[in-house]
Amino acid sequence: MLEKYIKETPDWLSATGPDADIVISGRIRLARNIKGFPFSHWASTKDLNAAADKIKDSVNKIDYFSGSESFKIKELDGLKKQFLVERHLISRELVSIKQGLIIIADKEILSLMVNEEDHIRFQALSSGLSLLDAWQMVSGIDSLLSGHLDYAYCLEFGYLTACPTNVGTGLRASCMLHLPALSMNRRIEKILPTLSRVGLVSRGFYGEGSEAFGDLFQISNQITLGRREEELIESLEKVVKQIIEYERESREEIAAKGGPRIEDRFKRAYALLTNASLISSKEAMELISVVRLGVATGFLDKIPYSALNKLFIITQPAHLQMLMAKELSASERDEERAKLIQKELQFI
Amino acid sequence: MLEKYIKETPDWLSATGPDADIVISGRIRLARNIKGFPFSHWASTKDLNAAADKIKDSVNKIDYFSGSESFKIKELDGLKKQFLVERHLISRELVSIKQGLIIIADKEILSLMVNEEDHIRFQALSSGLSLLDAWQMVSGIDSLLSGHLDYAYCLEFGYLTACPTNVGTGLRASCMLHLPALSMNRRIEKILPTLSRVGLVSRGFYGEGSEAFGDLFQISNQITLGRREEELIESLEKVVKQIIEYERESREEIAAKGGPRIEDRFKRAYALLTNASLISSKEAMELISVVRLGVATGFLDKIPYSALNKLFIITQPAHLQMLMAKELSASERDEERAKLIQKELQFI
Repeated sequence: MLEKYIKETPDWLSATGPDADIVISGRIRLARNIKGFPFSHWASTKDLNAAADKIKDSVNKIDYFSGSESFKIKELDGLKKQFLVERHLISRELVSIKQGLIIIADKEILSLMVNEEDHIRFQALSSGLSLLDAWQMVSGIDSLLSGHLDYAYCLEFGYLTACPTNVGTGLRASCMLHLPALSMNRRIEKILPTLSRVGLVSRGFYGEGSEAFGDLFQISNQITLGRREEELIESLEKVVKQIIEYERESREEIAAKGGPRIEDRFKRAYALLTNASLISSKEAMELISVVRLGVATGFLDKIPYSALNKLFIITQPAHLQMLMAKELSASERDEERAKLIQKELQFI
Repeated sequence: MLEKYIKETPDWLSATGPDADIVISGRIRLARNIKGFPFSHWASTKDLNAAADKIKDSVNKIDYFSGSESFKIKELDGLKKQFLVERHLISRELVSIKQGLIIIADKEILSLMVNEEDHIRFQALSSGLSLLDAWQMVSGIDSLLSGHLDYAYCLEFGYLTACPTNVGTGLRASCMLHLPALSMNRRIEKILPTLSRVGLVSRGFYGEGSEAFGDLFQISNQITLGRREEELIESLEKVVKQIIEYERESREEIAAKGGPRIEDRFKRAYALLTNASLISSKEAMELISVVRLGVATGFLDKIPYSALNKLFIITQPAHLQMLMAKELSASERDEERAKLIQKELQFI
């Protein structure tokens, strides 16, 4: 039952990890393909179904997946698919793949997309900056699964993937950073363009092509080839730590400068967030972002980061509709979103 | 002591008069000059001082003025003069008249400007739409004073005044209307231009040349000649009653239409008004106006109109500085204004 997930908050939003005031979450994605099966884009429906069956059978042989659930994309309606996208459990690409499958394990910490661009896309999400932990976990599951599946691999290149940019380790590591102070003082505009020089890329809350609403930036590695997984992760973490330091400096500057002009921004954002009768998804993200910075800089009373992280996701359109258990028009969503935010922040 | 006035709220803001939900106040102004003295603009300092002394002596002979206080304009600093302007007790013209005098009686219900354009300008302010009461009061005082002063009067024209537009009755009647619903649905744009056709004129909260911030419109008669005072007042009241009806209709439409989009405007205005750390005078008036409409239409919890009327005036720059008993920069005022509003609305 997909519905049960709406009542729970994913573990990676719990703000319990290192530097969770700035790093919402870390994510490790591993691409794998099965030897003897055509890559998904070239495969027939029969091939895809066979691959999916093979993967599911193998997964079921591993204890870790005993409590997991799997959902066939074609059996989900539009709302549920959108919910999974908002939840960061499936990619927008998988939505339109009929033979696609999503396997969700362990409180959404680990999940597997099947028959997306590659046969298997492992994903591990963790709170804060703990990519190596997430990597060790995915790596362990990957090893276990390799005992039951024959991966497409060659000695020269490493793991083979549908897109050459993923060949080698098949790894993509990313961090979701909340950088409101760097956005406020506009230093972010100087930092982002430098990332490509060190082989990194920045995207919005919903990955490729999404805008950085709510001052949320997803930073990930571009290179997957020619280096060990730990090296790739460590080089990402090194840059992320630098950005964390910049953000922390900027937050301290804002806190030290103080004054009513700065306080005013926070007080107004909190007042609107908790009093408006209508809030669009975009405005909600913006206000949550300002409030989160207000809490971090001490201008606003303490609100747990976990509560604000949760708001970022449950105020998304499909989440709202899943919560209300019905389809809502845009204006109905704006109304329900405002009510939901008030309810969530009322007893904190 | 002018300072004592800052601690009190003028009676005409009490919202106790008829139609006080829409009519903030009514005002009767009567222009009089003393026979044998040149009009103020042509008079020497000696003449002006003599006229002021004569008027003051006469006023002191009338019991009604026993508790009154008089202030010489030249003895007031800029802040205090500005305070009196904001208080609607003196005109902006009187501020620069050295031989000017203001006599304040009876909780600011009645006041006399001396040596403005005319030797005497009586003013009576009352809550709500009660111009005839105000007129009877001014008229009574005017009669009493005429027992001690020889007014410039001729049988053909009536009372003589410095400016021909005031000749005859010397009367100007006006109402301060709060018309937020007509502003919101923009019907006000059609109503205002029609006023001149019936001999009326509309101005902002601070009279001639002031903008209609806070949806406050001061509507007054232009004609002073050839009709009895009661007729002039009744013809103004007739139009005002029509506008009141339009405003009430518009408020009912807003209340009946309802919905989150309308509620949202009110909730946001109230949230900002009570939570911002900085508020400009203009924004304060705009927010107070929306909140006042929110109360009138039932979208917001009850706040006494008297409290909101009071906010319109005490948030003005000189009022704020008098309240703080010191000069404040614009940004300091914005800060103190925000605090003051919060304090005033906290225990309502």
